[in-house]
Amino acid sequence: MILHVQKKANLVALQDFYRAYAIEEKNYYVLITPSSIKEIDESHKEDIIASFPMDTDIQLASRKYISEAREIKLSDTVKIGGASNQTLMITGPCSVESEEQLDEVAQFCVAQGVQVLRAGCYKPRTSPYTFQGLGHKGLILLAKMRDKYGLKIITEVKDATHVEDVIEFADIIQIGAKAMYDHGILRACSKINKPIVLKRGFGSTLQEFVQSAEFILSGGNMNVALCERGIRTFESKTRFTLDLCGVAYLKEHTNLPIILDPSHAMGYAYGVADLTRACVAMGVDGLLIETHPNPSIAKSDASQQLNFEQFSALKKSLDKVAEAVGRKII
Amino acid sequence: MILHVQKKANLVALQDFYRAYAIEEKNYYVLITPSSIKEIDESHKEDIIASFPMDTDIQLASRKYISEAREIKLSDTVKIGGASNQTLMITGPCSVESEEQLDEVAQFCVAQGVQVLRAGCYKPRTSPYTFQGLGHKGLILLAKMRDKYGLKIITEVKDATHVEDVIEFADIIQIGAKAMYDHGILRACSKINKPIVLKRGFGSTLQEFVQSAEFILSGGNMNVALCERGIRTFESKTRFTLDLCGVAYLKEHTNLPIILDPSHAMGYAYGVADLTRACVAMGVDGLLIETHPNPSIAKSDASQQLNFEQFSALKKSLDKVAEAVGRKII
Amino acid sequence: MILHVQKKANLVALQDFYRAYAIEEKNYYVLITPSSIKEIDESHKEDIIASFPMDTDIQLASRKYISEAREIKLSDTVKIGGASNQTLMITGPCSVESEEQLDEVAQFCVAQGVQVLRAGCYKPRTSPYTFQGLGHKGLILLAKMRDKYGLKIITEVKDATHVEDVIEFADIIQIGAKAMYDHGILRACSKINKPIVLKRGFGSTLQEFVQSAEFILSGGNMNVALCERGIRTFESKTRFTLDLCGVAYLKEHTNLPIILDPSHAMGYAYGVADLTRACVAMGVDGLLIETHPNPSIAKSDASQQLNFEQFSALKKSLDKVAEAVGRKII
Amino acid sequence: MILHVQKKANLVALQDFYRAYAIEEKNYYVLITPSSIKEIDESHKEDIIASFPMDTDIQLASRKYISEAREIKLSDTVKIGGASNQTLMITGPCSVESEEQLDEVAQFCVAQGVQVLRAGCYKPRTSPYTFQGLGHKGLILLAKMRDKYGLKIITEVKDATHVEDVIEFADIIQIGAKAMYDHGILRACSKINKPIVLKRGFGSTLQEFVQSAEFILSGGNMNVALCERGIRTFESKTRFTLDLCGVAYLKEHTNLPIILDPSHAMGYAYGVADLTRACVAMGVDGLLIETHPNPSIAKSDASQQLNFEQFSALKKSLDKVAEAVGRKII
Repeated sequence: MILHVQKKANLVALQDFYRAYAIEEKNYYVLITPSSIKEIDESHKEDIIASFPMDTDIQLASRKYISEAREIKLSDTVKIGGASNQTLMITGPCSVESEEQLDEVAQFCVAQGVQVLRAGCYKPRTSPYTFQGLGHKGLILLAKMRDKYGLKIITEVKDATHVEDVIEFADIIQIGAKAMYDHGILRACSKINKPIVLKRGFGSTLQEFVQSAEFILSGGNMNVALCERGIRTFESKTRFTLDLCGVAYLKEHTNLPIILDPSHAMGYAYGVADLTRACVAMGVDGLLIETHPNPSIAKSDASQQLNFEQFSALKKSLDKVAEAVGRKII
Repeated sequence: MILHVQKKANLVALQDFYRAYAIEEKNYYVLITPSSIKEIDESHKEDIIASFPMDTDIQLASRKYISEAREIKLSDTVKIGGASNQTLMITGPCSVESEEQLDEVAQFCVAQGVQVLRAGCYKPRTSPYTFQGLGHKGLILLAKMRDKYGLKIITEVKDATHVEDVIEFADIIQIGAKAMYDHGILRACSKINKPIVLKRGFGSTLQEFVQSAEFILSGGNMNVALCERGIRTFESKTRFTLDLCGVAYLKEHTNLPIILDPSHAMGYAYGVADLTRACVAMGVDGLLIETHPNPSIAKSDASQQLNFEQFSALKKSLDKVAEAVGRKII
Repeated sequence: MILHVQKKANLVALQDFYRAYAIEEKNYYVLITPSSIKEIDESHKEDIIASFPMDTDIQLASRKYISEAREIKLSDTVKIGGASNQTLMITGPCSVESEEQLDEVAQFCVAQGVQVLRAGCYKPRTSPYTFQGLGHKGLILLAKMRDKYGLKIITEVKDATHVEDVIEFADIIQIGAKAMYDHGILRACSKINKPIVLKRGFGSTLQEFVQSAEFILSGGNMNVALCERGIRTFESKTRFTLDLCGVAYLKEHTNLPIILDPSHAMGYAYGVADLTRACVAMGVDGLLIETHPNPSIAKSDASQQLNFEQFSALKKSLDKVAEAVGRKII
Repeated sequence: MILHVQKKANLVALQDFYRAYAIEEKNYYVLITPSSIKEIDESHKEDIIASFPMDTDIQLASRKYISEAREIKLSDTVKIGGASNQTLMITGPCSVESEEQLDEVAQFCVAQGVQVLRAGCYKPRTSPYTFQGLGHKGLILLAKMRDKYGLKIITEVKDATHVEDVIEFADIIQIGAKAMYDHGILRACSKINKPIVLKRGFGSTLQEFVQSAEFILSGGNMNVALCERGIRTFESKTRFTLDLCGVAYLKEHTNLPIILDPSHAMGYAYGVADLTRACVAMGVDGLLIETHPNPSIAKSDASQQLNFEQFSALKKSLDKVAEAVGRKII
């Protein structure tokens, strides 16, 4: 249950009574109780401005609480979600490999009108015997690109040991699919106001996915976008299975902006263009597309990154699809 | 391996030697050997016009054999696949329930410019204690609609006991997802020339899916379209998971037309419009959408069928998306 | 709901009223209604001896209807399920390949004290370009082994076109995993009294699995055993994933005997012995183990069949495990 | 590739050349290269005592490197794995709830001859609106039980923010299923010598599972046991699907001790006894079973914990099954 509580009420007593999280809003407190609590106690009626009973632990993210889509402001013009009808394009290589490589991509972004650059510094690679990313050095390179080209920067947190570093350097914090349940990361991200792109774990249900977002929301950071990037199924001809039925579910039941990552889902460059067009036609709020100056020599995810030519061709085709569904790629 | 063999060659001897299926073409025979056979014997070189080594049991359906998309002619104007850039809309209720219901839908199809009517007669329902379909009576009603309104008819085969009936009555034979491996059905469908829409089993890999199509192709019927209708995954908030990564794979690797069924994948009417737009943006060759005059009283799949108003709105939006990707809904 | 109805009652009227299947028992009729029917009409109270409300379409197979395990009699001494505490060993090759091969296996069965011989005649192979089985010829060879060695014979139905042949020749009819939903087969098997081993489809839920059994039960054949043989998951290092949690569920909730097929689940001979011991420790009613005189030259499933030496060693170890859980391998 | 290198060789130069991890052994260094490196350079032949080419990133854990099972010593008598033929029983409640609850369980362990007590302090619960564990306070209570009753303590790490605390207090560190990919945790665990029980992520392949273990091994901690606890599949009647085919694979291909957690896999107490007997019959090295003085009031996982009576009955039956397969429960 979500309660809106008078500022003058005894917050601590109410929190205790309802075993509730509390967030401060301008004119009232928002209390979020466990979903097992179904009713307000008679004695608190005066303190409680409004109450929203919820049947699951999806609460702040639910359309039953706030029916309009939430909006995340990246700048005065760059917004994700809400009523903007904008689909934000985010692109860049899987990993920061060198300043030269990153600069090349950053210039390409500017030329393509892309405003947000992505690249990983901490690579959550499964094997210890492969490239593990440039780490802190990569963050510094990304910041350099922001300063040089005016791009916004998004990069991924892999575990709680470097979450503070990523929070310091990035404009948007991406929580990796393998870290979706990491409470150390979720807690740190709930205490800031920077936008968070939360990736769905490839073995995680939609319910768990939104519950992870609730950890951030209930800590006070309302700037959370959900990113579907493919789930693991029995099919092995493609790397993962992009769950667009799940996206339809999230659009219907949650008020959070939705970003799609077809590159990781497909795992092969040949399918990325078709899938990206499908995502745009679904009316999603953002796209994460891997692009590399020379995919064949990439240090990670070589098979799925687009080259510049492929990306340009895709970008052009997306404008038309977006227009067909009343949206605009930014 | 696929071999093109001179008409004058000793077909039976070659078949025996290569353990091969044979199909007659105008100027030559097509022999399809097990994929374990990798080379032509020196002594047969004169008899063999061309040879196509294949590394899996996907052969006639492979782009490595015929690189262009195959086309299925339904009539002089209605074609699926090939270079037509047409996306065929097929709609109708889950089940034939009564003549009145079917007539209402048929009239609606005509009004919407839809040329192919779908409806199930044999319902592959899992429980014995639910509606099992009208059977042969349903086929007669469908034929009546064809005669009255000039619509093409597609209906589903559920098991081999009624395959001959469906073949007799339908213009397009749909092989149900639960029957994808049924050799009794596949064999019967391979001996005719009517178009076959083969649905992917919800637990079947892409490899198995195309191998089922190979059963029909290697028997001599080249008019096979593949229908993705959602696979079963751990996610239970939606009925199935529409595998568009798999569709990207099929488009790249096979030469068969591809039809999408977002209604069964989603299981809920609310997501069908968004998903259908996504399918059209992928550039697929056909769509199967469930529509019912009054979904709330439908005898099967009540939750996922669109009503007429929802379908009209969807149809209108699809024309624009199709145009954006250089295609046309027919 | 299940109803026990007086013999003197108007059966047809009651069936019509409750939309019910009917089976004749000695002193009463058993009516099985859709699970949506929750109550008996006041006017029928006199006709109805007993009523069992059920909350799903699992009815005759439910422990809520008959709480003890059902027993299937193969002969006066060979019984599956019930209170027998016996675990029936069934073994033999994946496919009948030749009389010589089958005779060798049959002799081995006799030597090992195995009473039921398995071997496939119709092979539900996915690719059309591989060995499809000996068909009717294989059935005749199996019957010959029965006559020669006094073994019971079990073989698999693949589609409805040959179900009558298998019913004629086999002592136990095995419905293949890919045919679990095949109503043509289920209907034919419901009209006989021979024991049926129904394999779970590898993409089928436990609910659907038991519902398929309900088709046979509600047609009047109570001799149904459930066979778990591995489900399809994201894991590809093994062929399938043997679902022993599912077996625990079936033991708890259904009254049908349970048979396990670890050979198909694992797909590799090296794991079969360990898994078989696990199955016996679970307290199941039967085992299907693939054994071949020379697995390396087998025409199907070569990698997972045990050779005679491996089978003998396994058999010996099973006796001890069975004893530890109060059971006996027969 | 794994290399054994002379102590007198230039380690840094070799590491650089082969892009290798290094661990010090008594008489030589162990170098672990990426699996892409297939050969030793001629010029290094004198420095290299032995070389083990590996075809995947599974190296130190592979039977191809060390063919016998590795052993973990908990004390002079308590050993996991190796040639001990012992199966270690670990039990306790899902969560530390209070000193009283924990003391009651600890006494029960002593009475049952169980030597290792499990209980969670940091609960990786998916929803923020449910019990999150006692944290550091729980660790102190666990240490108290160790002092009072001489039990060994195992508890779970949930994210990298508290890994050092768990390392300080626990005798065995359990890495939770949701943290299997957490490099912050893996790194910290690789720098100590305490035994690690690494749980398989429920969406993780066997390959990824062993690769996570390689992170710990290649950092220098050889005391790693693998814990299978159920994978996520389409089946929802049980909480997860215990992957015993996967266990057979791990036994065949890796040299690490294997521990099974049937409680979390099943999710319901009714199936735990049967599954645990199955695990013992598989010949595994350890068991994690959830037991609670009063499961119905447990603050987490109430449905799957055994009560004391159920546990005693189970324990007794396991001794016989263990004996049947030549093992002993300790």
